[in-house]
Amino acid sequence: MELKTLIERIRNFNTLGMFNRDFLLTWEHCDDEIAAVFDVADALRLLRQEGISPRIFDSGLAVSLFRDNSTRTRFSYASAANMLGLAVQDLDEGKSQIAHGETVRETANMVSFMADVIGIRDDMYIGKGNSYMKEVAKAVEEGYRDGVLEQRPTLVNLQCDIDHPTQSMADMLHIIHHFGGVENLRGKKIAMTWAYSPSYGKPLSVPQGTIGLMTRFGMDVTLAHPEGYEVMSDVVSIAVENAEASGGKFSKTGDMSEAFRDADIVYPKSWAPYAAMEKRTNLFAEGDDVGIKALETELLRQNALHKDWTCTEDMMKLTKGGNALYMHCLPADISGVSCEVGEVESSVFERYRVPLYKEAGFKPYVIAAMMFLAKCKDPAAMLEKIIDGGNLRCR
Amino acid sequence: MELKTLIERIRNFNTLGMFNRDFLLTWEHCDDEIAAVFDVADALRLLRQEGISPRIFDSGLAVSLFRDNSTRTRFSYASAANMLGLAVQDLDEGKSQIAHGETVRETANMVSFMADVIGIRDDMYIGKGNSYMKEVAKAVEEGYRDGVLEQRPTLVNLQCDIDHPTQSMADMLHIIHHFGGVENLRGKKIAMTWAYSPSYGKPLSVPQGTIGLMTRFGMDVTLAHPEGYEVMSDVVSIAVENAEASGGKFSKTGDMSEAFRDADIVYPKSWAPYAAMEKRTNLFAEGDDVGIKALETELLRQNALHKDWTCTEDMMKLTKGGNALYMHCLPADISGVSCEVGEVESSVFERYRVPLYKEAGFKPYVIAAMMFLAKCKDPAAMLEKIIDGGNLRCR
Amino acid sequence: MELKTLIERIRNFNTLGMFNRDFLLTWEHCDDEIAAVFDVADALRLLRQEGISPRIFDSGLAVSLFRDNSTRTRFSYASAANMLGLAVQDLDEGKSQIAHGETVRETANMVSFMADVIGIRDDMYIGKGNSYMKEVAKAVEEGYRDGVLEQRPTLVNLQCDIDHPTQSMADMLHIIHHFGGVENLRGKKIAMTWAYSPSYGKPLSVPQGTIGLMTRFGMDVTLAHPEGYEVMSDVVSIAVENAEASGGKFSKTGDMSEAFRDADIVYPKSWAPYAAMEKRTNLFAEGDDVGIKALETELLRQNALHKDWTCTEDMMKLTKGGNALYMHCLPADISGVSCEVGEVESSVFERYRVPLYKEAGFKPYVIAAMMFLAKCKDPAAMLEKIIDGGNLRCR
Repeated sequence: MELKTLIERIRNFNTLGMFNRDFLLTWEHCDDEIAAVFDVADALRLLRQEGISPRIFDSGLAVSLFRDNSTRTRFSYASAANMLGLAVQDLDEGKSQIAHGETVRETANMVSFMADVIGIRDDMYIGKGNSYMKEVAKAVEEGYRDGVLEQRPTLVNLQCDIDHPTQSMADMLHIIHHFGGVENLRGKKIAMTWAYSPSYGKPLSVPQGTIGLMTRFGMDVTLAHPEGYEVMSDVVSIAVENAEASGGKFSKTGDMSEAFRDADIVYPKSWAPYAAMEKRTNLFAEGDDVGIKALETELLRQNALHKDWTCTEDMMKLTKGGNALYMHCLPADISGVSCEVGEVESSVFERYRVPLYKEAGFKPYVIAAMMFLAKCKDPAAMLEKIIDGGNLRCR
Repeated sequence: MELKTLIERIRNFNTLGMFNRDFLLTWEHCDDEIAAVFDVADALRLLRQEGISPRIFDSGLAVSLFRDNSTRTRFSYASAANMLGLAVQDLDEGKSQIAHGETVRETANMVSFMADVIGIRDDMYIGKGNSYMKEVAKAVEEGYRDGVLEQRPTLVNLQCDIDHPTQSMADMLHIIHHFGGVENLRGKKIAMTWAYSPSYGKPLSVPQGTIGLMTRFGMDVTLAHPEGYEVMSDVVSIAVENAEASGGKFSKTGDMSEAFRDADIVYPKSWAPYAAMEKRTNLFAEGDDVGIKALETELLRQNALHKDWTCTEDMMKLTKGGNALYMHCLPADISGVSCEVGEVESSVFERYRVPLYKEAGFKPYVIAAMMFLAKCKDPAAMLEKIIDGGNLRCR
Repeated sequence: MELKTLIERIRNFNTLGMFNRDFLLTWEHCDDEIAAVFDVADALRLLRQEGISPRIFDSGLAVSLFRDNSTRTRFSYASAANMLGLAVQDLDEGKSQIAHGETVRETANMVSFMADVIGIRDDMYIGKGNSYMKEVAKAVEEGYRDGVLEQRPTLVNLQCDIDHPTQSMADMLHIIHHFGGVENLRGKKIAMTWAYSPSYGKPLSVPQGTIGLMTRFGMDVTLAHPEGYEVMSDVVSIAVENAEASGGKFSKTGDMSEAFRDADIVYPKSWAPYAAMEKRTNLFAEGDDVGIKALETELLRQNALHKDWTCTEDMMKLTKGGNALYMHCLPADISGVSCEVGEVESSVFERYRVPLYKEAGFKPYVIAAMMFLAKCKDPAAMLEKIIDGGNLRCR
């Protein structure tokens, strides 16, 4: 799509609900806001391709807090911040005084005096990550109201226990591009399925984020997993409601083949059982290392019962025309490459390598769009201003 | 105060002594320089509130070296650097080759080829931090004279064993704002008092920085601590001289209530005995781990003798009108929140939470002002140039 | 030399082979390209001295990956990136998900969506570092071709197992300045000699980089080391070819005095035997910790047999006029300072301290020049544009 057309579309979206607000869960945002993120992301990409800098900040800080390892999201966040003119300042809790017993409220304010954005990854413990983000959001909201902070920094959820919105939005933008527009998605079948991995405790935020978002576009969304690998029931409810509202479908199955059959898109990916992750959170809280070790062993044993849940060439043949779009948030556990048996057969992964990398390549733009919409009251006008200014990224 | 008035005042200060120089101890700077830091900090804040970017660098590096954990000061330093257009480059000694036996002189030059500012926190060992900063300052001075460095980077003391100037200056600016101007401080009583903490070895730089700075404004400064918690005698001498020169008072007491009585400002805060910290430095030098452990036990035992040194509601009632300004550099040890018994009762802390956060919020501006005055020969003219340029921070 | 003259010279070099390409080994670059790096580095330094910012990027990322400790090169890289307008984003493998079993190809693409430059230090294992860089280069080349990456990031070798081009180029620029121009180097004798160090396993990239580069200027290059300290034979072959092509000389000797005799330049520096480093790589691959420990002991013992290989005042007397230019990549092992007996006598080191620091000071400009030439198709025109624009670095 042309920049001009995109800007016209953006002008017609009501994005006021994003202005000076956070992006924590996709289902907290209305359809206009979701659509605007996609279009602004596309506009920013077109600007970059034309060599025009979309920088809206002369200076400012984008704080990051990663409570779990990250490569893709860390670099995507840094790229988005840099694109808009912000410098990343990492809050490394190991090098801070937070261990002191400082409250979340205090830390949130202390790092925010000059912060325009705060990106947080906190996905390790069920019941914790999203609560933490909400606590930070409340703290900076109060800090702003009380005159402590001169601006209200925008929080961006870089993965929590419930949702992984920068991932699911990038995934969705990839789907939109693949099928030539959001208007072509109605009735398309997407299979979000569990897959075997020899590793333990992978976050639930990807399947949850996927069913919570993909059900909004009239698609036929199927969630498949072995018994015992249920995801959060609250998110399932959201998926059900979304599907109904969008005129799509949401179904669950315990059979991977059924999910793959006639699918237009497949997303086979390992995750841990919700109940087990809840248990782990409690064991950590109690400091029960023996219990944690026992749970880990039990989970690995449980995983191993389902080694047949893997995306083979044979499974791919079940999909629509045998060539569904294979998706993954990466890194994938590839059989014979990163592990003996994993989520996907290596020939399948190889065939989709380029599309997978492109899928990942949407993330910096999606994050930048979230920041942009939180900072620009009239995003269409700002995009026009950027085009008119014509500042080149490289001299 | 209006920007225009501030600039007129700044024009009348003689700040040449700060140009291309370091900021290590407040008492190394004349009254004009101290006053200029406050006014430039206020001017930078007003500019930010008006959305004008005070960026004076197109590019350049602000090196940071933290030999102790830091959140507040780290983010304040990063904010100040970013505000003026510098990128922070952290010297992480763990990832450098310094362990090799490299000299301070060499490292100082090696990281300074493009450095405009170097911020250092080195507060762990008595007799070490300030000496180290002076050694670095001498090295870059020589490097510049010898043609090794194209510019002489400015050192900013982000806390040493003697002083914590970015803290005490931010604290003082908070006091100035609270009382509506430095001209209203004459005769005001400030109680810098020791307070109980269950933790061990807190730095002396805050009480020392406070008595070394607050005695310069005609205030009645009282230092209170139990016997055995003496601070550096050199700094006490400076406080005595300052008080005399400014027409104020400096007194010491071993009674917390006496210090609180009729105080306009109270600053109850734990610190370690100077003599014990000196001993610890020697034990570290000797690698005497058993001795260090024994010292720690002894200090915790000694602290525990003074659990009554805590800022309760009853203590606050002793202050002027029962509502003295309560101050702390944060994080505070709050009874019943971060520890069983600590420096302050939680209801007192809660009541002052917003002012405390505002107190901390002055630090980025104070650091930026120190940098600004070290880089601009005519700071008033530069501020006018910035206003005339009218570059917006956000597009 | 004047900026104008430099730009005229740069205009006459054919640097198209550097445009959008990597800088991995100096001998992969033609004479024009090498000469252009020196002249662009000099031009960037003159611009900086005149206060003009050579910033060619409005925004963009310079990724860094250090698989070994670094101070000098880390800061030089950060300085170069900052000078040109790029923000450094460090890939800290400890905080990433790479351990997951992710391929080099994948990581390379994932960090490169917005990367303009990637700087890598990977010098620990023989046969590994350069291969890794080539693998990354191939991956981003493919990523660009496949439309995954919007730009092809330029790799800069910040030290590998074979070469240390940013070091040798900075060293060479220092030599050029010392002797008043590259045209004065013909026939000058440079002694690259091994020297004793009490530490173990120093990289071979410095001597290899030196003989691979310095042989290109008609100089008389002598490589000296005890038996058993041979460097990579492939690089020796390159040195032999280079010397022949440039009308210079390349010789090897097992006698340090012979190398020093009548030398114009001496570069005494410890390194590990190539064969031993190859063995170490294999032991690591096998996870043979006992073998590694034994090898270390053996190497230290072997080193200790050659304590007489040290740059004393007496050795310096053998050089041309007794005052050859003493060089080192720093940090040096200085007898009586950083160790009991080391590479150089302290009085020699002291006498050359300022020139040594200046030698190191060329590195940021050399790295910036490598980036500049990879990003500007017509570097002379870009330099003129920068001068005409006249953007000041400091307001």
